[in-house]
Amino acid sequence: METTGDYGQCPRRVPVPPSKPFLKSLQTSLKETFFPDDPFRQFKNQPTSRKFLLGFQYFVPILEWAPRYTFDFFKADLIAGITIASLAVPQGISYASLASIPPIIGLYSSFVPPLIYAMLGSSKDLAVGTIAVASLLVSSMLGKEVSPTENPKQYVQLVFTATFFAGVFQAALGILRLGFIVDFLSHATIVGFMGGAATIVCLQQLKGMLGLVHFTHKTDLVSVMRSVFGQIHQWRWESAVLGCCFLFFLLLTRYFSKRKPAFFWINAIAPLISVILGSLLVYLTHAEKHGVQVIGHLKKGLNPPSLSELAFGSPHLMAATKTGIVIGVIGLAEGIAVGRTFAMFKNYHIDGNKEMIAFGMMNIAGSCASCFLNAGPFSRTAVNFNAGSKSAVSNIVMATAVMFTLLFLTPLFRYTPLVVLSSIITTAMLGLLDYEAALHLWKIDKFDFFICWGAYLGVVLGSVETGLVIAITVSLLRILLFVARPKTIVLGNLPNSGIFRSMDQYPIANNVPGILILQIDAPVYFANASYLRERISRLIYEEEDRLKSAGETSLHCVILDLSAVASIDTSGISMLEEVKKNVDRRDLKLALANPQSEVIKKLDKSKLIDKIGQEWIYLTVGEAVAACNFMLHTCKSNPVAVDYNALDNNV
Amino acid sequence: METTGDYGQCPRRVPVPPSKPFLKSLQTSLKETFFPDDPFRQFKNQPTSRKFLLGFQYFVPILEWAPRYTFDFFKADLIAGITIASLAVPQGISYASLASIPPIIGLYSSFVPPLIYAMLGSSKDLAVGTIAVASLLVSSMLGKEVSPTENPKQYVQLVFTATFFAGVFQAALGILRLGFIVDFLSHATIVGFMGGAATIVCLQQLKGMLGLVHFTHKTDLVSVMRSVFGQIHQWRWESAVLGCCFLFFLLLTRYFSKRKPAFFWINAIAPLISVILGSLLVYLTHAEKHGVQVIGHLKKGLNPPSLSELAFGSPHLMAATKTGIVIGVIGLAEGIAVGRTFAMFKNYHIDGNKEMIAFGMMNIAGSCASCFLNAGPFSRTAVNFNAGSKSAVSNIVMATAVMFTLLFLTPLFRYTPLVVLSSIITTAMLGLLDYEAALHLWKIDKFDFFICWGAYLGVVLGSVETGLVIAITVSLLRILLFVARPKTIVLGNLPNSGIFRSMDQYPIANNVPGILILQIDAPVYFANASYLRERISRLIYEEEDRLKSAGETSLHCVILDLSAVASIDTSGISMLEEVKKNVDRRDLKLALANPQSEVIKKLDKSKLIDKIGQEWIYLTVGEAVAACNFMLHTCKSNPVAVDYNALDNNV
Repeated sequence: METTGDYGQCPRRVPVPPSKPFLKSLQTSLKETFFPDDPFRQFKNQPTSRKFLLGFQYFVPILEWAPRYTFDFFKADLIAGITIASLAVPQGISYASLASIPPIIGLYSSFVPPLIYAMLGSSKDLAVGTIAVASLLVSSMLGKEVSPTENPKQYVQLVFTATFFAGVFQAALGILRLGFIVDFLSHATIVGFMGGAATIVCLQQLKGMLGLVHFTHKTDLVSVMRSVFGQIHQWRWESAVLGCCFLFFLLLTRYFSKRKPAFFWINAIAPLISVILGSLLVYLTHAEKHGVQVIGHLKKGLNPPSLSELAFGSPHLMAATKTGIVIGVIGLAEGIAVGRTFAMFKNYHIDGNKEMIAFGMMNIAGSCASCFLNAGPFSRTAVNFNAGSKSAVSNIVMATAVMFTLLFLTPLFRYTPLVVLSSIITTAMLGLLDYEAALHLWKIDKFDFFICWGAYLGVVLGSVETGLVIAITVSLLRILLFVARPKTIVLGNLPNSGIFRSMDQYPIANNVPGILILQIDAPVYFANASYLRERISRLIYEEEDRLKSAGETSLHCVILDLSAVASIDTSGISMLEEVKKNVDRRDLKLALANPQSEVIKKLDKSKLIDKIGQEWIYLTVGEAVAACNFMLHTCKSNPVAVDYNALDNNV
Repeated sequence: METTGDYGQCPRRVPVPPSKPFLKSLQTSLKETFFPDDPFRQFKNQPTSRKFLLGFQYFVPILEWAPRYTFDFFKADLIAGITIASLAVPQGISYASLASIPPIIGLYSSFVPPLIYAMLGSSKDLAVGTIAVASLLVSSMLGKEVSPTENPKQYVQLVFTATFFAGVFQAALGILRLGFIVDFLSHATIVGFMGGAATIVCLQQLKGMLGLVHFTHKTDLVSVMRSVFGQIHQWRWESAVLGCCFLFFLLLTRYFSKRKPAFFWINAIAPLISVILGSLLVYLTHAEKHGVQVIGHLKKGLNPPSLSELAFGSPHLMAATKTGIVIGVIGLAEGIAVGRTFAMFKNYHIDGNKEMIAFGMMNIAGSCASCFLNAGPFSRTAVNFNAGSKSAVSNIVMATAVMFTLLFLTPLFRYTPLVVLSSIITTAMLGLLDYEAALHLWKIDKFDFFICWGAYLGVVLGSVETGLVIAITVSLLRILLFVARPKTIVLGNLPNSGIFRSMDQYPIANNVPGILILQIDAPVYFANASYLRERISRLIYEEEDRLKSAGETSLHCVILDLSAVASIDTSGISMLEEVKKNVDRRDLKLALANPQSEVIKKLDKSKLIDKIGQEWIYLTVGEAVAACNFMLHTCKSNPVAVDYNALDNNV
């Protein structure tokens, strides 16, 4: 301990780092903001031709992995691809009916976009597909503008246009490196929002289940319930019985495959089996003439081009743009979260911004080929993963299977009863009602739980947009509140050590007589500067009061532990200046401990460092305490209880 | 050191604090959010009658200090009050003309509100008065709805209504303890916004200076300049000469009193002298017949009641409400900042929320007594302070002097030339162009500087509202960016010590072989969790790369220093969980150092503590390093360069 034993007398200095040129530091901070993952790392020290190749591979990942692709991989991908295709066909038709567009568009949507994603996407597990929430949003947001029943052609055009804008928005976010915007949707809000949307979608399936013809276009609980119970006499028991049977079958297979993961494929092909069984049943019993609605005729053939259908001149362009942005964000939030989750399992990395570009391109291409919004649904991706997919080739297999369906099998869906689609949707949606996640939130963070419920109730009682707005607003408010109310902690000395820790957290910690040690626990910005100023003066005031009433040594020193203050702005510097004045006025000494590089730089630039005195800025709280005690000793001779030996290097 | 020497073998535990009941912790956090200054402190342990008295004194501070008021204080306040009255009369008239309302309302506004503030306000130095920016906002926001020249009666009613809403909004913020909303207007944005408004007001004074009759109602630079130079032939040289003389006189007195603070009163009474001189000049030369516009007839008598004028049924009610909220916030932001600044000098405390109630009450009362918005202008408060005011009685004296003026002296303003008012406004506004503050911002924080310029240019090139919206948006974006991109720092060992510090800040710090120490430098929320996850994996990846290429000991341990993580939400916990998985997959050990109470509680609740292992959570980085090294030693026998003796208790 020879080298460190004399800190009390000769503490080490906190040096002021040399200030960087402005442009240099701007460059660093821009890089940290927009390129935190350093995507150009691999380009360093490479010849130009190689750089070009790498760049091409960066934007089209298939070029990177295709040469390493083996036949074994293909066997795995073939099985996975066929499995997800058996899910994609009924789900595609179901979600199209949810979006109030012709069922065939649901099939189109599972053909072109997966091919694009397979080339551009960087996830090996993501199964591309339409998502229920986006379908619901499309029908609720665009249905207000143009009625899908009265003006189906214009409505479909608007859907394509919204898909186009969603793609443009997604790609733009990726290209502008603004992917972090998606991070502002917290997990809690997504759980609540998705749960609310799932509830609404389930309730709306009562239409199909009960064989109702007229139904509200609103999505809130009250309207849907009124619609259901307002026409009890229209309920068709045939439809209801059929629906319940299939729902029971689907839930049973899900329960079964959940208990035995090896049987995941039972769950995966159950929807297709339901469709086949349902269609056969209707065909054999002619139930379509007894109140069981069926899909009807589906046109054979591949996606017709739809570039000319994009309605840029439409008076509803604003609505289409807005819808596009909303569903684009939802698609990204779900897709990227899902991609990252599965990338975690297999230990590879997903570049959020690149993924956004892939999603965007796939939707732009989709909107020109009669598709609506595609993203990465969790359920289908989980099936893909369980089926042992090795790469995005499983998406290509799925697209091929869907192509085959479009070319040859569409007549088979003529007799598929709508009630089967309703059962499929309901089963999928029940999986989105993540009550376990909500319970987890309650256990860990009550505030997150309330945010989750806010989003849920917003969707269920208001509308999907209301829920989304509530979720985002509350999340932002929470950040602002976090920032506005940082913690200020009183530190005490842990017995027989030179360690200083929160007195609240460690009840064994002791006050250091005559010294108040405060730790500011967050970066100091304009938003919390005046709160911190008042908080610090109140803590000083209270400590003086306490000491006076207890008859102990009066206060001599205030030590601010700045270890946790990673950054500070001008308002923060003014705050420190005012704290210094305030402390001076009370005849106390102010010492700073462990200021970080940015703080000490700004203290220096603002000359506050001279007012405080360079000699009152210490490397550790322990050194500051030792110095304060040294001053206390030379002035008065109070007994001091701190373990001096241990004070040399401490926290 | 006996007690602390064996940490490597037997490190101290970080205990999980007992979890508080939910309601209790909710109560604490609500208290910390809404009552950080603990206003009820004084009520504790008091009998009920005393509590009642204290409560009354709390809301009406004059009851608290009036009994202690002495004659000496009164003498000082009398002088200060008369001084600020001499400023209030010409400024009141000037700002009324800026708000496009009859000049007499400017005088009314300096009578009733100061009396209310004197009773309810807690600042001893604040001089109440109208502020230029609010006047400008009133004329630009309400002038769009109702023309002040064509429909003056309705316009004035709207102004009173807006004042009423401003008061209600201010009082509501105070009562609901939402005062911290004002803190979200950063100093930088206020400097820029005020500077922009001052520029615009100065430019608009060219109307009065050049004796122009027609002038644009827009406030942007281009419109004003077009208005000025589009009618060169209407310029009146008489007016211009007179204006320049008075401007020169006012600037000279300001310059003089700035150099010798004892002569502050010269600056204070210069506007009144200008008014008197100007009026005399016009009276003697009949200049009003030669193109010099004058105020004209002012009605004698005190404020007429205006409760019945409040236009709650008006079709422009929305505009009035919006204007009220905007000017209310501006008034509060300026008034509270000014109050706090001067309270600092005299070492007393201003309760922001109480002050908001006082402002609100004064404006509600004002709107019922023909006044427009009052706040606490900096210039007038500075004069009040310099004149030696002791308490809010100086406001009462000022109000009495204005009352006297209203009752007897209004005819004297008949010949006051408008150009003198323009000079007075220009001089006051030049003081608001705080280029020194802008330079200070540039020196300390470049980003703040750009925010400041954004607000300035928004006001000057767009409109006052545009500037305000830009300022608030950019401030909020800055907070969000701060939150979204926290720092993650690599720590190294300072030579010959057990202290661990940032390798960037302390170039002498050394890597600990085989161990990567990362400090997360901000609370972890959903908004930064995924960034931190990627940042940490990248740092681990880079470190492994570096070690491999340098041929050093490969990585064995990752230590996360959580000292600065004051809070964490569920997304943050998931992030840690994923970091743990990631580290496990690379066959590394993860150790946590110094988690704070909230973090350890949530680690415990989420069971993550068991996955990480309680034994891998240490009190200090040093202990974690010692444990990692111990593991390294028992597994392999690598030479380790850390000073073992010093590793016992460290940072």
